[in-house]
Amino acid sequence: MTIDEFQKLIQDTYFERDNDRGAGGTFMWFTEEVGELATAIRRGDRENLLEEFADVFAWLVSLASITGVRMEDAVRKYAEGCPYCKKIPCDCSNKV
Amino acid sequence: MTIDEFQKLIQDTYFERDNDRGAGGTFMWFTEEVGELATAIRRGDRENLLEEFADVFAWLVSLASITGVRMEDAVRKYAEGCPYCKKIPCDCSNKV
Repeated sequence: MTIDEFQKLIQDTYFERDNDRGAGGTFMWFTEEVGELATAIRRGDRENLLEEFADVFAWLVSLASITGVRMEDAVRKYAEGCPYCKKIPCDCSNKV
Repeated sequence: MTIDEFQKLIQDTYFERDNDRGAGGTFMWFTEEVGELATAIRRGDRENLLEEFADVFAWLVSLASITGVRMEDAVRKYAEGCPYCKKIPCDCSNKV
């Protein structure tokens, strides 16, 4: 699935409600899911881990849609590898 | 770009360092970027907004890689629309 396809799927499913709620409220939902992801990583429950990664990603792309961002445009930042040291793999000294 | 391709790109660029650091430390970096995304949304600076969405997504997929999750598998949760009410668009009553 392309990033565009996933963003469109989430848009078709959630845009109206998320847009009505607005960026602030939607960001709160997003951060709830980030917390649930932390729990899932800590517990190591594989099925739940996949679910929470999906939820965080879904809320992230919904936030992108309601703020007018196309994720496929955003990720071009990483198209050539690390955008800071310009290498693959990254050898930035400040990312330890 | 597919979700797999982006995850592979980030893996090629950052996996070794992120894996050495571990999930906890990488989660901290991820949450720093979530904070920067909040700032970008608040300020409305379009160029910075795209950058921060990209950074959050990159750190999210890197977390997925180091915890053994393939994002393309995770997003199947949303393949049929809302995983809870099973509709497109969602009409769950608890997502306002």
